[in-house]
Amino acid sequence: MSGGRDIDALIEMMAKLPGLGPRSARRAVLQLVRKRELLLMPLADLMQQVAITTRECTRCGNLGEGPLCLICLDMKRNGSELCVVEDVADLWAMERSGTFKGRYHVLGGTLSALDAIGPEELRIPELVNRVAEEGTEEVILALNATVDGQTTAHYIAEQLEGSVRLTSLAQGVPIGGELDYLDDGTITAALRARKDI
Amino acid sequence: MSGGRDIDALIEMMAKLPGLGPRSARRAVLQLVRKRELLLMPLADLMQQVAITTRECTRCGNLGEGPLCLICLDMKRNGSELCVVEDVADLWAMERSGTFKGRYHVLGGTLSALDAIGPEELRIPELVNRVAEEGTEEVILALNATVDGQTTAHYIAEQLEGSVRLTSLAQGVPIGGELDYLDDGTITAALRARKDI
Repeated sequence: MSGGRDIDALIEMMAKLPGLGPRSARRAVLQLVRKRELLLMPLADLMQQVAITTRECTRCGNLGEGPLCLICLDMKRNGSELCVVEDVADLWAMERSGTFKGRYHVLGGTLSALDAIGPEELRIPELVNRVAEEGTEEVILALNATVDGQTTAHYIAEQLEGSVRLTSLAQGVPIGGELDYLDDGTITAALRARKDI
Repeated sequence: MSGGRDIDALIEMMAKLPGLGPRSARRAVLQLVRKRELLLMPLADLMQQVAITTRECTRCGNLGEGPLCLICLDMKRNGSELCVVEDVADLWAMERSGTFKGRYHVLGGTLSALDAIGPEELRIPELVNRVAEEGTEEVILALNATVDGQTTAHYIAEQLEGSVRLTSLAQGVPIGGELDYLDDGTITAALRARKDI
């Protein structure tokens, strides 16, 4: 490239973001430079701001701006239901559905022997403590339907068994899903869990 | 979302970048927050830096860090060949090919009656001046093969006719292109411009 040292460095760094490659990073940076006052400078300020203010909630692992996140601070949320998710993106996805009114616990990943990620790395001991201390009545294991996610769910279920009601998300045909495009596993799961109409 | 005010604002602004939607903006921001020292803070600094240092080259319209860009300053480039492109992204694309050793002139768009973009908005008068002052021998009109691009090329050709050699990029089958996937216009152009082997 030949836009100068800083702009080349900016493109290179933007290209590291998920969802952006070198080509879209170039387009994004050109757009930023074109809209310097409207986009580039406010974005730089916001990033600096987020770097300073944003932190992990000490209780649930969600992102927030104080020691506790907005969900943990919200007294209207039902403290007796605890939804366990892999990461913050999953928590946000749950929140967008707007159905769940309880609290969360973010693990920060899944168990993985290969990457040497054990229960200690995943805030699982914290989960066990919370269930004991907060009088939790139900733990919803909303982990991804992947091998790693399900292994982790099994492990957590073993740890908590007997002390609390354990549930997991239903598996089946997604809304709007066409059978022809679904994998065999999903169809099998949907058939096994079929319901009377 | 529920990650706090700053992070929500950052996601909203990132989603305005070309190539990023709300979903990929959320993923990018989570990645940024996770890699605060390595990604978020350096990126914020770089953006601030670019906002201060980057400016348009007063001669050709490319981006650079001084009054003249690196290409205009490079005395090894052939000043008698001038390549006219629509915007900086096109200039960078030409540079990546590494073939052209002359100088550039960035128009900043195409003529458009609908958007009220006339020659004055497009640095076309500057182009006419440069050709007269710099002793240009050849002007390569490397505008996009769109209706607007070709209209603009026609207009520029009219302005410069007689004073300089005018050329345009060859049209034909792209390298690696399969005939079955090419549009009729490209095949027609490639057939008309066929060459003896």
